[in-house]
Amino acid sequence: MPRYRLLIEYDGAPFVGWQRQANGRAVQQAIEEAVLAFCGEPVRVNGAGRTDTGVHALGQVAHIDLEREWPNDTVRDAVNAHLRPEPVAILATERVDDGFDARFSANRRHYRYEIVNRRAPLAIEQGRAWHVMRRIDADAMHEAAQALVGKHDFTTFRSSECQAASPVKTLDRLDVMRHGERIVVEASARSFLHNQVRSMVGSLKLAGEGKWTRDDMAAALGARDRAACGPVAPPDGLYLVKVDYPQES
Amino acid sequence: MPRYRLLIEYDGAPFVGWQRQANGRAVQQAIEEAVLAFCGEPVRVNGAGRTDTGVHALGQVAHIDLEREWPNDTVRDAVNAHLRPEPVAILATERVDDGFDARFSANRRHYRYEIVNRRAPLAIEQGRAWHVMRRIDADAMHEAAQALVGKHDFTTFRSSECQAASPVKTLDRLDVMRHGERIVVEASARSFLHNQVRSMVGSLKLAGEGKWTRDDMAAALGARDRAACGPVAPPDGLYLVKVDYPQES
Repeated sequence: MPRYRLLIEYDGAPFVGWQRQANGRAVQQAIEEAVLAFCGEPVRVNGAGRTDTGVHALGQVAHIDLEREWPNDTVRDAVNAHLRPEPVAILATERVDDGFDARFSANRRHYRYEIVNRRAPLAIEQGRAWHVMRRIDADAMHEAAQALVGKHDFTTFRSSECQAASPVKTLDRLDVMRHGERIVVEASARSFLHNQVRSMVGSLKLAGEGKWTRDDMAAALGARDRAACGPVAPPDGLYLVKVDYPQES
Repeated sequence: MPRYRLLIEYDGAPFVGWQRQANGRAVQQAIEEAVLAFCGEPVRVNGAGRTDTGVHALGQVAHIDLEREWPNDTVRDAVNAHLRPEPVAILATERVDDGFDARFSANRRHYRYEIVNRRAPLAIEQGRAWHVMRRIDADAMHEAAQALVGKHDFTTFRSSECQAASPVKTLDRLDVMRHGERIVVEASARSFLHNQVRSMVGSLKLAGEGKWTRDDMAAALGARDRAACGPVAPPDGLYLVKVDYPQES
């Protein structure tokens, strides 16, 4: 069966997350229904990153197997037509060989977390960024973030519901930059634990408030204890930006 | 009575525009009700730009007169508290003297129009940009735009409902730039006619499609005839970015 790779953008706000759940509509489900409506085939859409309720994607990747072969653009346009008016868009579709697996072939995932740091509430970006009212220090956040970069046991920054076999991950990058009232956190790794980015960002906020030093961050990591984590940041500000595959490097 | 100047951000999608209308909720009305809830005073909120249904603002300016004097931050925070959960935020409040009028003291208004030029529909930016599927040439748009810069009779680019006394305006700037799949149009003038920016952007799209040259744009302007205008661009992509006042220049 011909396999297609999909590049996907979505607004996570109205969804229970990427993966099908009993308690509401999932992005995966919306795409599976659109594919069914397009070609009559009940497919399974396999995603690279299982984003949580309310988390957005600018570049989620998934694959599907169809019974017959279609031009790439036909798959993209037809699935998009059936997705309307849901806030999910297939940006590109590409025929790939059977060895490609959106989840298991991925060798790096890039997330971005957006904070708007100002007194006034969010109007245009409601649901699309974390509103932090008290001034926080992005340089202090960046400094503390460096304590997390590298290969570590990330038990502290892992949801109690995380199903990963091992809590040991290699964090390649965790950068914090301020642009005016906006603070952007960029995180890259081969893979992340459940809630890892939001757990790290919540703890970085404590560093931005002057409550945690870089040493406190290192101590929280070293504790390997969920109780040592700061309050988890909300999903609103989190975006799955890009997924890398070996053939592209 | 102490006069306050308000700097305001809003998502225009759920509103019938800035100004009170019989047929739905206006941004002006939302703010007037929030001021009433805060201090019990029925005020009139006077805005610098009367944005249409669906048009957004990053930096609308308005003034209000209150009976008693409050600290600037108290007015901002209290009005914001009462605006919740509407997508309107008071970014800043400043005590000004009675000579200040948000509309009549303004000496320049800056608008931005956002186009996303790609095949796939919009997911995250639904309602916040104009989705143009066919590739358009931003350089050709910029070139044609220069035919509109300067002092002209803008009858062609004016809504039939426009109430301005004269169709003659001076357009200081109309720049078109592409950043990847995004095309941004920036327009600055002392004041604009009703629907002027959206009318100009709709005509610029024809230039981007290769249907109009710069000479065609000049001819449309010279016709001083509403029928010579291209199809008006939708409100989704339009943002009132900033309003200038003489004391700041």
